[in-house]
Amino acid sequence: MNTIEVCLSTDLFKCYDPKGKVVVVVDVLRATSVICTMMHNGVKEIIPVKTIEEAKSYKEKGYLVVAERNGQKLDFADFGNSPYFFTRDVVEGRTIVYSTTNGTNAVTVGKDADEVIIGSFLNLSALIKHLANKSKDILILCSGWKGKFCIEDTVLAGAISQMLIDKFGYTSDCDSVFASIDIWSLANVDLKAYLEKAAQRHRLKKLGLDDVIGYCFTQDVTSVVPVLINGRIISF
Amino acid sequence: MNTIEVCLSTDLFKCYDPKGKVVVVVDVLRATSVICTMMHNGVKEIIPVKTIEEAKSYKEKGYLVVAERNGQKLDFADFGNSPYFFTRDVVEGRTIVYSTTNGTNAVTVGKDADEVIIGSFLNLSALIKHLANKSKDILILCSGWKGKFCIEDTVLAGAISQMLIDKFGYTSDCDSVFASIDIWSLANVDLKAYLEKAAQRHRLKKLGLDDVIGYCFTQDVTSVVPVLINGRIISF
Repeated sequence: MNTIEVCLSTDLFKCYDPKGKVVVVVDVLRATSVICTMMHNGVKEIIPVKTIEEAKSYKEKGYLVVAERNGQKLDFADFGNSPYFFTRDVVEGRTIVYSTTNGTNAVTVGKDADEVIIGSFLNLSALIKHLANKSKDILILCSGWKGKFCIEDTVLAGAISQMLIDKFGYTSDCDSVFASIDIWSLANVDLKAYLEKAAQRHRLKKLGLDDVIGYCFTQDVTSVVPVLINGRIISF
Repeated sequence: MNTIEVCLSTDLFKCYDPKGKVVVVVDVLRATSVICTMMHNGVKEIIPVKTIEEAKSYKEKGYLVVAERNGQKLDFADFGNSPYFFTRDVVEGRTIVYSTTNGTNAVTVGKDADEVIIGSFLNLSALIKHLANKSKDILILCSGWKGKFCIEDTVLAGAISQMLIDKFGYTSDCDSVFASIDIWSLANVDLKAYLEKAAQRHRLKKLGLDDVIGYCFTQDVTSVVPVLINGRIISF
């Protein structure tokens, strides 16, 4: 019987053993939603980088660079972090270098896992199908906000956990799984209303960047399952 | 207007700034429940120590030592970590040295705060009254389990947060507060049934130590508010 764990923040990842497991990285607002959108629109590959310096160095080499900190686009970058930027005409066939406050860090910490894949509401059903086919133990990594717990990632972790337990017989003895499922069960009654309280929603609102909220909570916009292979994210 | 935050694990405490705040340490199963029980039964002071070596060294100096790891009493210690050991005839007027897997670590990390106090279901109403009188910003620190999130501490953090918000006008923009309140609202319908799923409950059951569960979730057994002053816990 395969198991599920949820890690509620990148800063807690050291408490878990990812070896032999599939790590599902989630950063609903906005990194993993953006990655799924780019993949859906035909990006060739995404290179997630942790530091601003690495992102700058790629820019100098001529790469297309997406970089934000605290929600805002960095000066040298080609794009900020809204999924709306990444239409097919912009990304198709391109390599994009990607650095965000939380999400790209989360993508890179899971590198010892059997596989690292990218989850969002946008690819939820495809993700569940992929995980059920893999039939491995699963560790869902919520990116959080600068190490802190964040509610929208937990809601998605709960949705994934509940579907795998209910439909595919996964089991868990992880308190974070039980809490995430409970939060998902409360949120799922009216997802957008529930997420009104999320701190990141308010951060984005202050920056005038909250137009993406509705989109990022829409299920099954795409059937892509982005996967990290040799430091690059490609479509499975 | 005073604010509340919840830190869901000792390992995330570095993401928070405790300065000027009251830190409320919770470790429902079992450290903070045990501390409240000792205080209720007249202990003079408790010296929380982080390492087994420190606890041993105090034992050699003749102190009464309570020490456990992974739920079980350490050989050299006078007592393990069940609140039932600490009756008035055992603890009254004594100094007790105390070292546990998670809780005593949590007590010591908050030392830069304006005040560190000890919370449990056993002293919930007294704690709320104390906090409302202090009228300071509050940071509730859930001890967790070896760095991981744990559900029973989150339930108590939710209870404290909801009472302070509803009755005393505290505010929050912390996602951990919102999630804790939601979990408390689900748990409060039937607290003992809800906590059936808690991983720590099952760990204690395996060790035959789960006889304390009912007691540790009983509200308002005592009106003590243990407080950390100069590295020692005394009754406020």
